[in-house]
Amino acid sequence: MSQIITLTTDFGLQDYYVSAMKAVMLGLAPEARLIDVSHDIPPQDIMAGAWVIRNSALLFPEGTVHLVVVDPGVGTSRNPIALKIEDQFFVGPDNGIFSLFYDEFEVEAYKLNKKEFWREHPSNTFHGRDVFAPVAAHLGNGTPIGQLGDPVDDLVTYHWAVPLADKDGLQGWIVHIDRFGNLVTNIPDDLVKDTIDSGEVKIYVGNTMLAKFVNTFGEVEEGEPAAYIGSSGMLEIGINKGNASKMLSVDKGAQISIVLQK
Amino acid sequence: MSQIITLTTDFGLQDYYVSAMKAVMLGLAPEARLIDVSHDIPPQDIMAGAWVIRNSALLFPEGTVHLVVVDPGVGTSRNPIALKIEDQFFVGPDNGIFSLFYDEFEVEAYKLNKKEFWREHPSNTFHGRDVFAPVAAHLGNGTPIGQLGDPVDDLVTYHWAVPLADKDGLQGWIVHIDRFGNLVTNIPDDLVKDTIDSGEVKIYVGNTMLAKFVNTFGEVEEGEPAAYIGSSGMLEIGINKGNASKMLSVDKGAQISIVLQK
Amino acid sequence: MSQIITLTTDFGLQDYYVSAMKAVMLGLAPEARLIDVSHDIPPQDIMAGAWVIRNSALLFPEGTVHLVVVDPGVGTSRNPIALKIEDQFFVGPDNGIFSLFYDEFEVEAYKLNKKEFWREHPSNTFHGRDVFAPVAAHLGNGTPIGQLGDPVDDLVTYHWAVPLADKDGLQGWIVHIDRFGNLVTNIPDDLVKDTIDSGEVKIYVGNTMLAKFVNTFGEVEEGEPAAYIGSSGMLEIGINKGNASKMLSVDKGAQISIVLQK
Repeated sequence: MSQIITLTTDFGLQDYYVSAMKAVMLGLAPEARLIDVSHDIPPQDIMAGAWVIRNSALLFPEGTVHLVVVDPGVGTSRNPIALKIEDQFFVGPDNGIFSLFYDEFEVEAYKLNKKEFWREHPSNTFHGRDVFAPVAAHLGNGTPIGQLGDPVDDLVTYHWAVPLADKDGLQGWIVHIDRFGNLVTNIPDDLVKDTIDSGEVKIYVGNTMLAKFVNTFGEVEEGEPAAYIGSSGMLEIGINKGNASKMLSVDKGAQISIVLQK
Repeated sequence: MSQIITLTTDFGLQDYYVSAMKAVMLGLAPEARLIDVSHDIPPQDIMAGAWVIRNSALLFPEGTVHLVVVDPGVGTSRNPIALKIEDQFFVGPDNGIFSLFYDEFEVEAYKLNKKEFWREHPSNTFHGRDVFAPVAAHLGNGTPIGQLGDPVDDLVTYHWAVPLADKDGLQGWIVHIDRFGNLVTNIPDDLVKDTIDSGEVKIYVGNTMLAKFVNTFGEVEEGEPAAYIGSSGMLEIGINKGNASKMLSVDKGAQISIVLQK
Repeated sequence: MSQIITLTTDFGLQDYYVSAMKAVMLGLAPEARLIDVSHDIPPQDIMAGAWVIRNSALLFPEGTVHLVVVDPGVGTSRNPIALKIEDQFFVGPDNGIFSLFYDEFEVEAYKLNKKEFWREHPSNTFHGRDVFAPVAAHLGNGTPIGQLGDPVDDLVTYHWAVPLADKDGLQGWIVHIDRFGNLVTNIPDDLVKDTIDSGEVKIYVGNTMLAKFVNTFGEVEEGEPAAYIGSSGMLEIGINKGNASKMLSVDKGAQISIVLQK
């Protein structure tokens, strides 16, 4: 089976940046299969990139290399790193982009300081092409991760705000809004289940109140809002055949409350 | 030759949805070659997706599998289906997305009700990852389409408004506007030819009148509108090096009339 | 190693245009590996496409075929061409899209007039599908470039405005603004070095004055502008973790002056 290397960036496709990275990787690993994950991460939005990676990378076949370049700190002192998490490899900047794995999985981490695996004369502003792409190609070619640099253990870690649970219920936040306007919260399914088990609830988000959870937005009428566990395992608010963000005027960062009725 | 699986969705690339589907397919069919057709179908716009599929799918090599997920009804009772049309396979929701083939081609259709070909514990809101992607991978691996589910014959069918032809001429509609602003109508080339053969015409669209058909917009001056048969075989109105939709203020759904001059 | 064919277009992905080209190429060259460079070149912006090609094409492995379709003149008398530059092949319209290579490299050029390498009954408005894609596939299959058409030597050539250097300093223009808002100029690194060697400078762009060059925007404070050599080898103005185009109100085409201080 030929090696799979995925690409996730905030580069967009109007510039030559993605193309240059693909060219460098194919030059070093001519048989590698390049899989575009996304080049539409909002510019410099580390947590948006972390969310995409967290929800799809571990589904790839064993040994897949994930090149992830959302790198507002390029040209500063942040470290380039390579990670092994479960049976997957990751290459990118140490700026929190891989954070959403750290609580849940063992991480083997290396600081990329062996310049023989970089392009010669690397630029200061495009480590995607000159450091990360060649390192990803070498990993794909079978270079052991431990040869790419020295072990490192204090990684930059961003945490999402943790939902607050008390005797009155739960309080969380909208951490992502998808293309369809569905509101993804930071409340995982087990917390939702615990709360439901405690009794009747009301759910408040923006100016809207919902009185129950459903299995899918298809269970409510067209145009009605619904609260359900989304495909990422988090509580979501969506509207059946509608855009919840627009119709409820709720943006990223908004608060959501689940209040137990006594 | 390794199996080709194409992907057409309205998911965009800011979310993990496309990536998760690719990961699931590569897990089941590691040698499959994934070809992105489009992830920029306007959200939930079934007919826009149908148009893209109708104009390119049958050009692919024999045996190609087309995964098509524009699925506003996910989580409702709409059926997941697999189709064989000519020498190509299609997997997606039965919501009209494949309609534009039904008048012209024989269709072999199956309702996807064999859960052994799905992911375990499928979510209610992401059948792309949990039903359609694994089924597409199994098809790509050579599973006969008839094993994926039971035959079904009453498919959801959307029709485009049919152009009206009478003794005064033709009346049609703008059904698609492309990235360059070209206005694609629902009037096929043979109807145009019949009308031209009947005598001189005037063409009315928005506030503009055109007095003749040309072979290509290159035959009119820069900035001038032109009526010609587009690459999809339908009548189009374009502007030489300009954007017809903007310059003529014509949107999708607008009427176009071809009036015979007596 | 299987043949690589890259695709660069201004087609976007809402239409069937890219998909139809991929289908035609895979029909003729079933084992070819299609690499998306960009489909987001701004519509009909030849120089934006030329910039992407110029900065990445020559990094690809030897023998790569680059299909480039930014083609506002489709359906007019402009020539379809195939080029050999260094160890790479290029297929597209002769409208200046390959211009940025012509000053620096030897170019072997052929006018595509052998219709046996096209699709049958080519349309007037979609040479991407009917002329360029099949020719790219044939090149990828090993057809010698000289068989595809007759040699041609007077290619359409666009030049970027050349920066002006005199005893007072340098004057250039902003020729590209990337997704992050970095301002790319037409001033190459060697000219910048010559000027720096001549003494102290001030750099004027929009209403902003910078007093020095740095190696990367990471050397200035967050929110501050910086002048540095970008990854394309040209002088750039960027803002550390900010968008220079927006924050300095500078658009494509703006002037930049480097004034020697005496």
